[in-house]
Amino acid sequence: MKKFKTIGIYSSLRSTKAFSLSNQIEEILSSKDCKVLYDNSFFLHGKEKNKKTFSKKYIINNADLIIAIGGDGSMLSCSREYGFLGIPVLGINLGKLGFLTDIAPNELTTKLLEVIDGKFEVDERFFIETKVKGNKKRYIALNEVVVHSGAIAQLIEYDLYIDKTFVYRQKSDGLIISSPTGSTAYSLSGGGPIVHPSLDAISLVPMFPHSLSSSPLVVGGGSELKIITSNPNHKYQLNFDSHISIDLKGAHEIDICKTNSMLKLIHPEDHDFFDGCRNKLGWSTGIANPKRKEI
Amino acid sequence: MKKFKTIGIYSSLRSTKAFSLSNQIEEILSSKDCKVLYDNSFFLHGKEKNKKTFSKKYIINNADLIIAIGGDGSMLSCSREYGFLGIPVLGINLGKLGFLTDIAPNELTTKLLEVIDGKFEVDERFFIETKVKGNKKRYIALNEVVVHSGAIAQLIEYDLYIDKTFVYRQKSDGLIISSPTGSTAYSLSGGGPIVHPSLDAISLVPMFPHSLSSSPLVVGGGSELKIITSNPNHKYQLNFDSHISIDLKGAHEIDICKTNSMLKLIHPEDHDFFDGCRNKLGWSTGIANPKRKEI
Amino acid sequence: MKKFKTIGIYSSLRSTKAFSLSNQIEEILSSKDCKVLYDNSFFLHGKEKNKKTFSKKYIINNADLIIAIGGDGSMLSCSREYGFLGIPVLGINLGKLGFLTDIAPNELTTKLLEVIDGKFEVDERFFIETKVKGNKKRYIALNEVVVHSGAIAQLIEYDLYIDKTFVYRQKSDGLIISSPTGSTAYSLSGGGPIVHPSLDAISLVPMFPHSLSSSPLVVGGGSELKIITSNPNHKYQLNFDSHISIDLKGAHEIDICKTNSMLKLIHPEDHDFFDGCRNKLGWSTGIANPKRKEI
Amino acid sequence: MKKFKTIGIYSSLRSTKAFSLSNQIEEILSSKDCKVLYDNSFFLHGKEKNKKTFSKKYIINNADLIIAIGGDGSMLSCSREYGFLGIPVLGINLGKLGFLTDIAPNELTTKLLEVIDGKFEVDERFFIETKVKGNKKRYIALNEVVVHSGAIAQLIEYDLYIDKTFVYRQKSDGLIISSPTGSTAYSLSGGGPIVHPSLDAISLVPMFPHSLSSSPLVVGGGSELKIITSNPNHKYQLNFDSHISIDLKGAHEIDICKTNSMLKLIHPEDHDFFDGCRNKLGWSTGIANPKRKEI
Repeated sequence: MKKFKTIGIYSSLRSTKAFSLSNQIEEILSSKDCKVLYDNSFFLHGKEKNKKTFSKKYIINNADLIIAIGGDGSMLSCSREYGFLGIPVLGINLGKLGFLTDIAPNELTTKLLEVIDGKFEVDERFFIETKVKGNKKRYIALNEVVVHSGAIAQLIEYDLYIDKTFVYRQKSDGLIISSPTGSTAYSLSGGGPIVHPSLDAISLVPMFPHSLSSSPLVVGGGSELKIITSNPNHKYQLNFDSHISIDLKGAHEIDICKTNSMLKLIHPEDHDFFDGCRNKLGWSTGIANPKRKEI
Repeated sequence: MKKFKTIGIYSSLRSTKAFSLSNQIEEILSSKDCKVLYDNSFFLHGKEKNKKTFSKKYIINNADLIIAIGGDGSMLSCSREYGFLGIPVLGINLGKLGFLTDIAPNELTTKLLEVIDGKFEVDERFFIETKVKGNKKRYIALNEVVVHSGAIAQLIEYDLYIDKTFVYRQKSDGLIISSPTGSTAYSLSGGGPIVHPSLDAISLVPMFPHSLSSSPLVVGGGSELKIITSNPNHKYQLNFDSHISIDLKGAHEIDICKTNSMLKLIHPEDHDFFDGCRNKLGWSTGIANPKRKEI
Repeated sequence: MKKFKTIGIYSSLRSTKAFSLSNQIEEILSSKDCKVLYDNSFFLHGKEKNKKTFSKKYIINNADLIIAIGGDGSMLSCSREYGFLGIPVLGINLGKLGFLTDIAPNELTTKLLEVIDGKFEVDERFFIETKVKGNKKRYIALNEVVVHSGAIAQLIEYDLYIDKTFVYRQKSDGLIISSPTGSTAYSLSGGGPIVHPSLDAISLVPMFPHSLSSSPLVVGGGSELKIITSNPNHKYQLNFDSHISIDLKGAHEIDICKTNSMLKLIHPEDHDFFDGCRNKLGWSTGIANPKRKEI
Repeated sequence: MKKFKTIGIYSSLRSTKAFSLSNQIEEILSSKDCKVLYDNSFFLHGKEKNKKTFSKKYIINNADLIIAIGGDGSMLSCSREYGFLGIPVLGINLGKLGFLTDIAPNELTTKLLEVIDGKFEVDERFFIETKVKGNKKRYIALNEVVVHSGAIAQLIEYDLYIDKTFVYRQKSDGLIISSPTGSTAYSLSGGGPIVHPSLDAISLVPMFPHSLSSSPLVVGGGSELKIITSNPNHKYQLNFDSHISIDLKGAHEIDICKTNSMLKLIHPEDHDFFDGCRNKLGWSTGIANPKRKEI
């Protein structure tokens, strides 16, 4: 398998912990003759405050891997900024294990060396893109798009179409449209199912629906969703990965579908999606020897 | 499109209503020179009590379509008995609209003639097969397999493996393993998501789980599920489409996966899955002209 | 039973429909020699734009009943403004039947005359009051108090104490604290139980909780709830009946309990809480003669 | 506070662990000059196989406390057999902490001596009684009554009346009628709310309801519930505390209400209901020093 030679380092945190972890990573990578490129926005401080950093454009043109340090938040922004443009992403978690970041600080050296030596798995995940009719911009999310009133206990009303076929008119606080990657995040808190990352599917989970018969719905990943709002007095908010949000009012057509570009998520070789579920969700392991996972 | 010439008639009901509907169907089919084959188990009565009926084997060798009269119950057994062996199935509902039977008695002539004239859609659905290690029989379900204690509020314990990878050890009253076809049936009552029939996926919905963190899980349709039970005192029941059930006790390995054989479900041309959801689940239509479903 | 002589008229809607209904009500009340007092904020228009209206203070001192015209929104503000100060409240719904407004326009004359003639039931409901330590104001809600981040998919963290005993530390989008009256409103959309209005109880329903083990909780109506927030970076919003809201940031102590003052809700004599549930929630009536409700 | 002098010992388990714990308990009680009465059904073995045991009648007439050894199962049967007739019940858990048994083996001596010395709290819990019209027997449950088809995915249909008022006709696998004590047991697994034990309330939680609008319902503890079944072909099962069950078929009237007799549950003095929730349900404690529970 391909080996990584030029590696970007990214974090959305302004944290000394992330910084000291980055030094450790740099040392490991240097021992393998890898070149390290710090992202411009990386939080440097102390003696190394003036360390050289690189523009997003430069990193995209040169790096063959980018390491995101932090939690799922750093991983999500790194994925949207670099992963979406084709750079494979590896997550090092700072603190608690995440669903996306699966190397812990205490196993950093071993696991990172393995990855650099070509012992890794590539896990492809799709992004969701959103367009608002009349607005040229397209908004990218890895986890989920939320259409919402922007206020608590404030109903919005919308018609949902899938592949040009009418599904329902619904009154609710909002709707969560989630990728399998996002199915263990906000969608899960809202009662949505866990969707295995290998499944090409999109989940739709209504938020505080006015009607109790509004179940979560899982449709094919290739579905073209259209949300039509018409109430001239209703305010709507679109929210991408709980990070970027835009405001709308009145009648709009919102088109949501997956993108052609796929995130290449890099995992150490023994990665196991259900291991993350057991750790994060407290599922019972039940087996005396947790290493004996295969049958 | 292919036209149907020899058509079986099936119902699991012992009902005069089903019988009089079958007479009407026979008349329509005869007007189109179709040959009608009544299934041996069809409930005949009155003057026509001695009408000729045919064995399952004969019908399978000769019919190019089978019509199931009744509700989802008739449709499920007809699908397991005939559909599983390759005969396309068309459902005529007796009474309330079902998710599987989509011709109502009051539109019988028009819709049936259209289908006979080749105006129909074929909707392919997979079956789920279950094998218990040490038992040669394989059990078929269209909607769902339920692994259960066979009693109320009686926990069973099992380990779930997917594609040979351990998922969790769980204590619950049972587990519903459902196809997309079954996602609008028992699984839905248990809090499972609605899964679009075009999606190749299997849902797992725990029943009264001991731990509140046991969410519904949706995995790829090609997944090989293995349920391992080990408590020597626990009784287990396997239930297929709420129809057939077998009893087990103690340690067992239960293998569940989809079959290669697909049900060919015949729909009139304007069939719409979401129409069924709106009707059956009371979803709001919201649009003045319900015929204006496309955008 | 006491008869009503001086009657206020209130609506939070700016609607000609509410206005024309108020004229009809005035006519009915005049026929019974009742005095009618329009609230200052009532939306008058057309020829009667200059009709005399009265201050809240005057109405409180003089009216022995206030009629709220509109939906549950009008009823909630009327209850907080007048009902909280002891004036009995009768709701006339405009359009769809509500849980609080139970006289429909098409039965207005009959039902209203009955009430005026003393044929009515008094249904007492408690209010919830909220105080923020360091802020002298006390905020009143009839349905629910929501503690929330004020943004979508934005976790807040808080410690909950009940009667000075620690309950849990929770991360979620927010928490709904609801009276039985509010149990059929926002709390229900969030998965909370329906609590019968005669029960002296408060429901706590977490919104998009980070942990799946956070069930709805029902505690005694006399409970003193305390919510302590401490994260200096978290923003909090308190929302009362989805109507009034205040913003907080950082460490706060929020005290929530029921008030001594009770709303006197006036119903026509055949009022039935479960009738509202069946109508509004689509519960099956199942009985041929829906009037035969008693056994 | 009253001191206990004559103490029964009960367990529904046939376990050597329970037996050796009983020896330890006997030793502690003897050191305080308490008389120990083993229940007839207690599992004795080894050298003490011929130890004297006592009839239920004798224990009821003589004991002023009964100790149940085991899990919630032993506690439930002990409560129905002895607690229901007025004997206070103390639970010693064998293994995992329960909601009802709150002395762990490793703190047995300290806690038990405290209780014997009069340092305890009495927590009163109501029982639910069930009568089937035409059958003189009355069935007692501490946790819950379940009305059920007795089979998986088999709908029953029933009309529910509360205090002679019709509530709904429902199709479901069954209905869980739970006391606050039972609200953390089977009802919770079925999506019911946690109801604080001090609240005089009954929860109704439908099991796999045919209609998605069937929410859990909480009504006053004094409510008289009547369930009327009428389908002559439906089989029904009544289940009490998942322990005793009776079978019915066809038309029946089932009356359910709380009993006048209350269970006197004995707790060590620092008992905290929410502590049980945090331990058993994995609620976050969040506080550095878990002893600092009061504010």
